[in-house]
Amino acid sequence: MTTSVVRIAIDCMGGDIGLAVTIPAARQFAVKRPDTRFLLVGDPQAIGAKLKELGCASDWCEILPASEVVAMDDSVEVALRRKKDSSMRVAARAVKDGLADACISAGNTGAWMAITRYVLKTLDGIDRPAIATSIPNQTGGATIMLDLGANVDCSAEHLLQFAIMGAALAQTVDRRDRPTIGLLNIGEEVIKGNEVVKHAAELLRASGLNFYGNVEGDDICKGTVDVVVCDGFVGNVVLKSLEGLAKMVASMMRQEFKRDPLSLATGLLATPVLNRFRARVDNRRYNGAALLGLRGIVIKSHGSADVYAFGCALQRAYEAVQNGLLQGTTSAIDQLRQSLRVADVRATQVSDDAPQPAPHPGA
Amino acid sequence: MTTSVVRIAIDCMGGDIGLAVTIPAARQFAVKRPDTRFLLVGDPQAIGAKLKELGCASDWCEILPASEVVAMDDSVEVALRRKKDSSMRVAARAVKDGLADACISAGNTGAWMAITRYVLKTLDGIDRPAIATSIPNQTGGATIMLDLGANVDCSAEHLLQFAIMGAALAQTVDRRDRPTIGLLNIGEEVIKGNEVVKHAAELLRASGLNFYGNVEGDDICKGTVDVVVCDGFVGNVVLKSLEGLAKMVASMMRQEFKRDPLSLATGLLATPVLNRFRARVDNRRYNGAALLGLRGIVIKSHGSADVYAFGCALQRAYEAVQNGLLQGTTSAIDQLRQSLRVADVRATQVSDDAPQPAPHPGA
Repeated sequence: MTTSVVRIAIDCMGGDIGLAVTIPAARQFAVKRPDTRFLLVGDPQAIGAKLKELGCASDWCEILPASEVVAMDDSVEVALRRKKDSSMRVAARAVKDGLADACISAGNTGAWMAITRYVLKTLDGIDRPAIATSIPNQTGGATIMLDLGANVDCSAEHLLQFAIMGAALAQTVDRRDRPTIGLLNIGEEVIKGNEVVKHAAELLRASGLNFYGNVEGDDICKGTVDVVVCDGFVGNVVLKSLEGLAKMVASMMRQEFKRDPLSLATGLLATPVLNRFRARVDNRRYNGAALLGLRGIVIKSHGSADVYAFGCALQRAYEAVQNGLLQGTTSAIDQLRQSLRVADVRATQVSDDAPQPAPHPGA
Repeated sequence: MTTSVVRIAIDCMGGDIGLAVTIPAARQFAVKRPDTRFLLVGDPQAIGAKLKELGCASDWCEILPASEVVAMDDSVEVALRRKKDSSMRVAARAVKDGLADACISAGNTGAWMAITRYVLKTLDGIDRPAIATSIPNQTGGATIMLDLGANVDCSAEHLLQFAIMGAALAQTVDRRDRPTIGLLNIGEEVIKGNEVVKHAAELLRASGLNFYGNVEGDDICKGTVDVVVCDGFVGNVVLKSLEGLAKMVASMMRQEFKRDPLSLATGLLATPVLNRFRARVDNRRYNGAALLGLRGIVIKSHGSADVYAFGCALQRAYEAVQNGLLQGTTSAIDQLRQSLRVADVRATQVSDDAPQPAPHPGA
């Protein structure tokens, strides 16, 4: 689906930095993509002042006032029940009311999840929304991984739903044809894993999705499959572990190139190579997690995103709208339910046609 | 505790490479540490030939014949029931029979776990053994993490037992005083996580261990705590994910330094810096996972270990014996049981002293 104009509601107040990141990023994006209109949600005075400071025309945006801000350490309860006019809530409502095609925040993840779920509701056939992101892999592309922390205790059915939503994301936004799905496990063999994962594998094999089978932790960066499915506890821990290692490696490399004057000199000579390397492992490019399973496109930016990273998250929102993520997800769910219904009917027919057991000798 | 001679039984046949790695590594180690005696377990002809090929005296070793080899893809059942004279089993039995102080294999992890557990049995107070390894962290040291895959479904009590064993490892082998324990979770707040993790945190707080609290994935490489505790599913997936990222980063760096003649030239100039960097992130140094909770010291080397990496695993075995890991673990468990017993007694006393509830009106 192609919308003539893509309208994105931004929670301008969210994130570690807030306005100083969200507004310049939106402005730059609007210059690059003139078919975008932004709804800048938050304190109208502060937003107006920032726009004036940037000295830009306002034909690419509109201010949507919100009197409250959800703090990074607010509990979900506070965010949801006590701050009913928060910039998060107003941004989500803009999607609900049809004023925007997508909404985005760099604020408190738990609150953003709870607010968008409350305002937008989940899609038919989805019990729980999930958080999905892309992780750069060795093929030069990226692996979609979900869930990343929305759901800590998952059933096999939930994992199946994550797979459907992840496949829809890969198909529409990353334009993969019949994306492959891997189930994160501790071994490739069918017998491996805990009970939930084993049952999920059975459901996935029967689902009609392009199920590759079990994958292991190192398959994420190998790029073995398009989509890696896991519960939110595992996904969150893995993602943060990878971020931790990436930071450690970067910091050790800096230290070694600064150890002495000679190292510093070689570091200067190697700058072009190191910059290319950094660009390849720069995870800012992949900023912008999708909150899937909601009746609207919802993106979450990293809280510490800078202007470049927030722009990448805006790009995710833009592509999700342009490529019809919502319609793609809805129709993937419908298709699967259809095929499951057919399978159910078949199973019933088989049992109807099956020969009746002989009466018990003692009967 | 210091043993005059450290006796290590090596499953010489295990691992992707086998004899060509295990024997040269043992030989090099014996030269460096003349207070070590090796029991080389496996096919006596093949071992004899390898020793002859290396042209070394045999005063540092003894051959212990075993007629079978557990293959990397053998099921646990095959390894345990059908190969009763495997090099793994003979190596484990050497510890059981008091011929060796520790045993080590680079073979099939599941089989090694099952065989050593069957032969050696678990320590009193430990329901399930756990696999622990060290992961290099930003402080220049390493973080001990467990369990790494021995147990996929864990209770809170199991996580507590892992913490005790991890603390004993940190205290004896890494010589940390009152090592800090972190519980791997998806947020630092007490309310985060699934039910098992929340209950485990309560047990840890009451345990008398130096419990830091919840830690997140990025704390592993930050080195926030000495020991990170998690269930085997999460631990395995995290460890393999980190290995995958490390490989990807190394390969991307190689690619960038080989992209064109100029990059190649700067790469040559930067060789000393890059070598220092590589040495710091080289996880071969941390090869040698400990199988904790057994009545004997059992080490697992990575299957693909080279001579250098296998030597590092031998060093782990050596240090575990020298520093009294087994005694340390046993006394840590005893101490904890003692303090729990005191707590139990106290709880009983409190409930005895508590005022009796008034009889039910209807009684």
